[in-house]
Amino acid sequence: MEIKKVGVALLGLGVVGGGTYKILTEKREAICKSDGVDIEIKRVLDKNSERIKELGIDESLVARSIDEIAADKEVHIVAEFFGGVEPARSFLIRALEAGKSVVTANKEMLSKCWHELELAARRGGGGVYFEASCVGGVPVIRTLTDSMQGNAITSMKGIVNGTTNYILSRMSDEGASYDACLKEAQRLGYAEADPSADVDGFDSTYKNSILSSLAYRTRVPVDTVYREGISDIDVKDIAIGKDLGYTIKLLAVSKCAGGAIEARVHPAFLPHSHPLSSVKGSFNALFLHGDNVGDVMLYGRGAGALPTGSAIVSDIAFAAGKERHRRFDFETEEVDRAKFVGDFSCGYYLRVIADSASLGKIIDVLRRNGVSDCAVKTVGENETVFVTHKIKESAAKRAVRDMELLSGVEKVAALIRIED
Amino acid sequence: MEIKKVGVALLGLGVVGGGTYKILTEKREAICKSDGVDIEIKRVLDKNSERIKELGIDESLVARSIDEIAADKEVHIVAEFFGGVEPARSFLIRALEAGKSVVTANKEMLSKCWHELELAARRGGGGVYFEASCVGGVPVIRTLTDSMQGNAITSMKGIVNGTTNYILSRMSDEGASYDACLKEAQRLGYAEADPSADVDGFDSTYKNSILSSLAYRTRVPVDTVYREGISDIDVKDIAIGKDLGYTIKLLAVSKCAGGAIEARVHPAFLPHSHPLSSVKGSFNALFLHGDNVGDVMLYGRGAGALPTGSAIVSDIAFAAGKERHRRFDFETEEVDRAKFVGDFSCGYYLRVIADSASLGKIIDVLRRNGVSDCAVKTVGENETVFVTHKIKESAAKRAVRDMELLSGVEKVAALIRIED
Repeated sequence: MEIKKVGVALLGLGVVGGGTYKILTEKREAICKSDGVDIEIKRVLDKNSERIKELGIDESLVARSIDEIAADKEVHIVAEFFGGVEPARSFLIRALEAGKSVVTANKEMLSKCWHELELAARRGGGGVYFEASCVGGVPVIRTLTDSMQGNAITSMKGIVNGTTNYILSRMSDEGASYDACLKEAQRLGYAEADPSADVDGFDSTYKNSILSSLAYRTRVPVDTVYREGISDIDVKDIAIGKDLGYTIKLLAVSKCAGGAIEARVHPAFLPHSHPLSSVKGSFNALFLHGDNVGDVMLYGRGAGALPTGSAIVSDIAFAAGKERHRRFDFETEEVDRAKFVGDFSCGYYLRVIADSASLGKIIDVLRRNGVSDCAVKTVGENETVFVTHKIKESAAKRAVRDMELLSGVEKVAALIRIED
Repeated sequence: MEIKKVGVALLGLGVVGGGTYKILTEKREAICKSDGVDIEIKRVLDKNSERIKELGIDESLVARSIDEIAADKEVHIVAEFFGGVEPARSFLIRALEAGKSVVTANKEMLSKCWHELELAARRGGGGVYFEASCVGGVPVIRTLTDSMQGNAITSMKGIVNGTTNYILSRMSDEGASYDACLKEAQRLGYAEADPSADVDGFDSTYKNSILSSLAYRTRVPVDTVYREGISDIDVKDIAIGKDLGYTIKLLAVSKCAGGAIEARVHPAFLPHSHPLSSVKGSFNALFLHGDNVGDVMLYGRGAGALPTGSAIVSDIAFAAGKERHRRFDFETEEVDRAKFVGDFSCGYYLRVIADSASLGKIIDVLRRNGVSDCAVKTVGENETVFVTHKIKESAAKRAVRDMELLSGVEKVAALIRIED
């Protein structure tokens, strides 16, 4: 195979950027042999000169601006490691317009600005690569783009955030409280000092938007994804759920049927037997269903310098070998909002604080909201759990409101959705 | 994206060929939109004219020979569905030499004749694609070739044969005998009338050869893969193993350390907590470890017309979009045999029929063969199970021979390897 020489610029040399630098340097020869592309790091950009020194990067490679990189004819691919929307967005658009391909792990920026990157890529002729944006080193993006062409994907369920999966796994295994497990996750570096992006579900929402857009071949904007985090989860419900045969996970779920799309992120109970139930700690997994392939699951580390660096490097090698880059049909921010279903359907777990005299009335409320039969479990004095079959979210919310209006009902202390 | 027109020929229209015909026809427009390639079926070849009629294929597409297809300038990709070495091998070499790319699910032919296909591909300029050869519609091949460039793969464990996994899962879940479960698998169409290719491990060996060759980037010939099937597995040992915390699987295992490669196929006990332990029935999975990405598992249906057809179609679309085809460094049949390790290491489960007076002597035999400590479990009158830590296969075999020479030992009734 004739060797193709490819120059790369790295924007940002933090944890993942530094990891990528190391992997690219270490595997250059092997990649040359396997893929026929000789990848050379031509430029780096980082305000922090300490990092450049620590990595032993030659001064001559240090760029002072994105313009310098955009103008460099020897740079073919620009990989970005900033995180957050700006300056990542402007820098990558600048690179794309200059004809480079770009590689990014930046799920927030990609999910919000995909149409702008796509348009810039069309103008410049390069491609947009983002394997590292979802589920770290596990090739979920390449699977959706390059291995599912023989399928219509009908649904996906993912554990796409390691921080929340770590916290929920510990709560589940040890019976420890949310706060204690969050602190432990922070101590171990699995959670940020400000954990909101993870625990409130934002990160999973960005990823759900990206994965669903690819799966259903239509842009699924972030703001159409329903979002609920894990900070209100009571360890008591995890234990009761376990008894009932369920494992709790923060799930990114989406479905597509007859052109109607629903996408959501929320804590959910899954049957213990579901393959996603055994995905523990900081591991991630994506479970998808295609009309021809059936069920497929991809599992591995969703974060960390080396797993994410591994995905970035594979994207660089993949982009380097391409002559025609994939184009996505997402050229505008506008989408037909009518096709997004807000009122999805699930099973529901409801823990209700109520005196026993009101149980009949509660069941009646459920019945009036479409629950023909339900499981009832006493879990404490004046505390009862109701498990429903699939009903509409709106019906579940209405049932909760109606229950709380009943005399004898103190409150609905927990509502957890159930997936199958 | 400019649409590229691509013509395809299908060789063989049996179960998978027919499934591929249907998927290609049904998804043509969607693939055109997502991948920018318009895939048209230009030629089919099958001696059975009934099949052609059943699929509603126009007479004008029917070719009378591979030469006619090789000469057809409108055919760019040839997909083969014959199975077995010949005529698949000759036909695909013919197509490659004529400059076509080829797509195949034929693990036996590929694992045995890869070097010949590779040489023909180099002469003609096309590529060799074989996603469907291992683990059906799950993109294990594409993952190894196009998503692991940032890694040295150090080990793999796979459940790569659905028939044997179905049989072992039923034996394990229901306590039914091997013979009963094999019959049931045959009745359901999961096993052939002559089940040897599956139950004796040949099929898994072909797949191990292909997967290991890709993972370690060096040809791992089929005859270097140790092979043992499942037909001697006693349901009794499955039950005892379950108690000890193990699930039985027919595993394809391979490892690469310091250039030394071991590859093997045999029944093995895995801890219940291992992600592969929950892969049940006819499902397959590949678990691999990369030095940067860590553990990755890919899971799904390993066989069947539509899952396999899905992989074939994704290969056709992938090949159609390529300008430069991947070249493998496997141009000769010769390999340096010194790098293959025959004497691998495992834990061992040994069920020994012996009177209780000889237990001390048995432990002494184990000790002399390198087992410093072992678990001993009485499982019947004059029947004891010994579980060792990791030792060499040669030491385990020697220990078995030495035990059987002891007076008081009737026989070693079971030897099952243990993986972690």
